[in-house]
Formats: sequence, C-alpha cells, structure tokens
Amino acid sequence: MIETYQQRCQQRVDTRLNALFTPPLPQLERLYQAMRYSVMNGGKRVRPLLVYAACEALEGDATQADGAACAVELIHAYSLVHDDLPAMDDDDLRRGQPTTHKAFDEACAILAGDGLQSLAFEALAAPAHNPADPALRLEMFSSLARAAGPAGMVGGQAIDLGSVAVKLDRQALELMHRHKTGALIVASVRLGALSSGRADEASLAALQQYAEAIGLAFQVQDDILDVESDTATLGKHQGADIARDKPTYPALLGMEAAKAYAVELRDIALQALQPFGATAGPLRELARFIVERRS
Amino acid sequence: MIETYQQRCQQRVDTRLNALFTPPLPQLERLYQAMRYSVMNGGKRVRPLLVYAACEALEGDATQADGAACAVELIHAYSLVHDDLPAMDDDDLRRGQPTTHKAFDEACAILAGDGLQSLAFEALAAPAHNPADPALRLEMFSSLARAAGPAGMVGGQAIDLGSVAVKLDRQALELMHRHKTGALIVASVRLGALSSGRADEASLAALQQYAEAIGLAFQVQDDILDVESDTATLGKHQGADIARDKPTYPALLGMEAAKAYAVELRDIALQALQPFGATAGPLRELARFIVERRS
Repeated sequence: MIETYQQRCQQRVDTRLNALFTPPLPQLERLYQAMRYSVMNGGKRVRPLLVYAACEALEGDATQADGAACAVELIHAYSLVHDDLPAMDDDDLRRGQPTTHKAFDEACAILAGDGLQSLAFEALAAPAHNPADPALRLEMFSSLARAAGPAGMVGGQAIDLGSVAVKLDRQALELMHRHKTGALIVASVRLGALSSGRADEASLAALQQYAEAIGLAFQVQDDILDVESDTATLGKHQGADIARDKPTYPALLGMEAAKAYAVELRDIALQALQPFGATAGPLRELARFIVERRS
Repeated sequence: MIETYQQRCQQRVDTRLNALFTPPLPQLERLYQAMRYSVMNGGKRVRPLLVYAACEALEGDATQADGAACAVELIHAYSLVHDDLPAMDDDDLRRGQPTTHKAFDEACAILAGDGLQSLAFEALAAPAHNPADPALRLEMFSSLARAAGPAGMVGGQAIDLGSVAVKLDRQALELMHRHKTGALIVASVRLGALSSGRADEASLAALQQYAEAIGLAFQVQDDILDVESDTATLGKHQGADIARDKPTYPALLGMEAAKAYAVELRDIALQALQPFGATAGPLRELARFIVERRS
C-alpha cells in the first residue's frame, strides 16, 4: 500500500521535476542534460514523499506542496552528484548507472550539482506550486537553506569525509548522520507541513520528532543493507562502506543490535504521530517501510 | 571618492560576513575555516557595493540591504572556489593567495563552495538585515536563485568551459559573459533596489539596463587587464586567458576597439541613471571606476 502511495508521489514529483530541465538556450543543452540525468534516474523520491505525506497529515492541498517536493529532491540529487566525485567518495555507479561525472565529465558534474542547488531554491519561488502566503514560503526557503547548508547536510558530508579510517563512537556516528541525511529529511517533513498552511508549533514539533527518528532509521537500515544485500539489488557496490573502513552501525553495535535499534527508531517515529488521525497514514506506513525495505 | 565609498561598503559587509563563519560544532571547524578563507580574502566587494549603492539610489536604509550584500558576495565566492578546481579552470592562485583547494583540499573546497551557496540564501532570511515585507524578501530570494542558477551564472560557466579553444564570435562571447558574470551583477543591483522597499517597475528596468552595461564593461576591462597588467598587480597569473586560448575582447576586436567598447558601455550605464538624482552618485562613480581600474 505504501508502494502505491510512493508511486503516486513519484509520478507527481517526476512530472514537475521533468519540466525544469528544458534548456533556455542551445548552448546550455549539455548542462541541462547532466542535471536531468542526475535527477530523472528512477529514484524512489523518499523526500518528496515525506513532503506530500506531511502536507496530507495536516489536510493540506498537495498542489501547494509540489514546489517543496521538487526542492528537497533537487537538493538531494545535487548532494549525490557532488558526493560521488573523485575528490569525494569516488563512486562510479549510482542506482546501477554511471555516476554523473562518469556519464559526462567532472567539470560538468560540479556545475550540474551547483545548478541543481540553485534550482531547488527556485522551485520554492513558483507561485502556482507553493502556498500563496509569502511569509510561509519565506519560512520554507530559510528552513531549506539551513538544512542544506554547512550546519546541515553539507556539514554532515564534511564530518563523514573526516571520519574515514577514524574510530567513531556511536555518538559521533549519530552526529554525522543527523547532519548528512537527517537534516534534509527533517526539512522535507517541515516543508510539507508548512506548505499545508495549517501547521502550528505543536504539530511541527511532533513531526520533527518523527522525522529525526525515521532519518536515523533510514541510515541504520542502509548500513544493514550494505552488509546483507547484493550489488544488483542495491544498485551500488555492496560492501562499499566496509571496504572504505567507514563507520557503520553493524560494525559498531553488531548486526542484531543494529536491527533492534532500527526497530526502536521506527517505534519512536510512530509514537510521535499519536496526536494525528488517519491522515497521517502514509507517514506511519513509511516509518514501517524504511525498516522493512531490502534495497 | 569611490574608493572611500568602496571601503565603507567593504567594512560594512565584511563585518556581517565575518559573523557567518563561527562553526556550530567543533567537528565542522575545518569546513567553516575553508568557507571563511574563501570569503574573507580582502576582496573588493564590488557586488555588495552595487547592492548598497542601488539601495541608496532609491533612498533606502542600508541596514535592510546587509542581507542581500552578504548573499551576492557569498554566491560570488562560492563560484570562484568551484571555478578554480582542477576539473574546472585549475587555478592555484587567487588574489595572490593559494586557491581554496590548494590551501585545504579538493573535497573541502567542493563542500565549502556548496555550503557558501546555501549560506547565501540563508543570509536573505535573517529578518534584522533584510526588508520586513515577506513578499519583498521572497522576490529577492527568487531573483538570486534565478541569477545564480543554470540559466544564469552556472550556465555561464558551462558555456565558458565549452568555449576553450573554440572560435567564439562577439555575440557568443557576450552571451557567455551575460550569464557568467552579468547575471549576478544584475541581481546585485536588483536586490539592492528591492531591499530599499521603494523600487517600482520603471526604476527596476532602468537599474537593470545600468547593471547589464557595467557587467559587460567589467568583463571587457578584465580582458584588457589580463593582457596589459602584470601578475603582481592582478593577484593572478597575467596572460592566463590567452595561455588557455580563451576568447577575449582584445583578441576578438583588437585592443583599441575593446577599450572603446568599455567606454561605450560605461556611457550606456550612465545614460540609464538619468532619471535618478544625486543619490545615484555611487552607481555613477562605479561605472567610471570599472573602466578606469588597473587591477
């Protein structure tokens, strides 16, 4: 059932995203191709799903969440393009396809990533796909900028790069994940809630708690899958984290404890949704899906 | 006299910029150091000056322009960090100092650039340093995102990279510059005008004409200085453009015609300011300075 909802969100956001990659000039064709290649890759669109599901939880109109759904996916896509670069994680495969700097070239990948970040903020400006209230959109802008920036996602990647072959403890690993992936997941839920035009402080706080828990659960499960899944299912090289001597939850806690921790986080997420009614159904199902997924 | 004004703007924006680089966590110290290094480098702050001068031309309060002044400089700084990378222009010297990837490392430079772009948008969110009206700030946000993005500055760098060793005609060269440097200069003037809270359509159109002309003049003069100045004065390797076989105005038009074109653009800029009174003094002086500068 979450699969149906996921496909609906995926189609919805993919239609909107696809419209962003028409080059305004023939000279910009290659750059726009590289951006399109980096985004339109069959991704599961977990972050847009969170935007729509949070908007729906507050009984908002999905039309007003389209801008935010695009924005968070564009930030995510740019971060993958840059993280895959030779100077960073040096990955040649992403979702079973050559990474952007392999399919194009390194300079093009750097620029495509830079451009995708700008496009993300532009997506929040389109009046037709965002809430009409300027104050609300301004709050969405600033939440996304904070989450994407050096005190959020970019900071997380910096901490991650500084942690290779370093013995991180659980607290340090968690700090890295809270920045690297957690900040954008929290922002996705927050932007979705704001886009509904019906968010109050209490619902924003509850949804933040939910988002922090599933963000971490997602990461723990990723670490588990890196050990247990195979390259074909994963669409990237299995065992890549271990090969790089990157710290992981299974390495740190043991596999059984890592799995128990993922379940515990799912339950914290579900607990945070208690004040919400049936409209939070997709958020609840997603919390379950994150821990049960096999790829 | 423009030098005094420039120094005042420089001090003003440097104080605000400097406050942005305090790491929120000890683990982020290196990233914030790299961002600070990339920004706090004695730059002339031409774009912030344009913000303040455009705000002043419309009799606005400079306090409301501080956010925009920081934002445009942060976008400019990030673009330099990424343009200098080995996969791009591969420069090891910038304003007489090692470029960010030389002083730190490549991964750190990529992340510092990414973080600076996010910080730029964050700078427009701070209520104390921007106009109070959310609709106005939203317009500033979206203008900056468009100017910085693939249809603006990033697109310009893509066109530039595609033009090495290609015989560009004057129209193609101009198209590249209008994107690579022009878009952000136009945005600087626009954001400054908007921040005053007193911009109407007519003044925005006149200021855009001004900004387009000085943006191009700046580039023509840069090309001239690349030929005529020496490395010490320039703070970068003299003749770098020629060595790379990059298209330049002197190469395309001849040196005398290039100089005449810079003067013509200055006059177009001054003409566009005719509707404005004495408050546009700094904008006028800057147009003159751009063509007269020696570095």
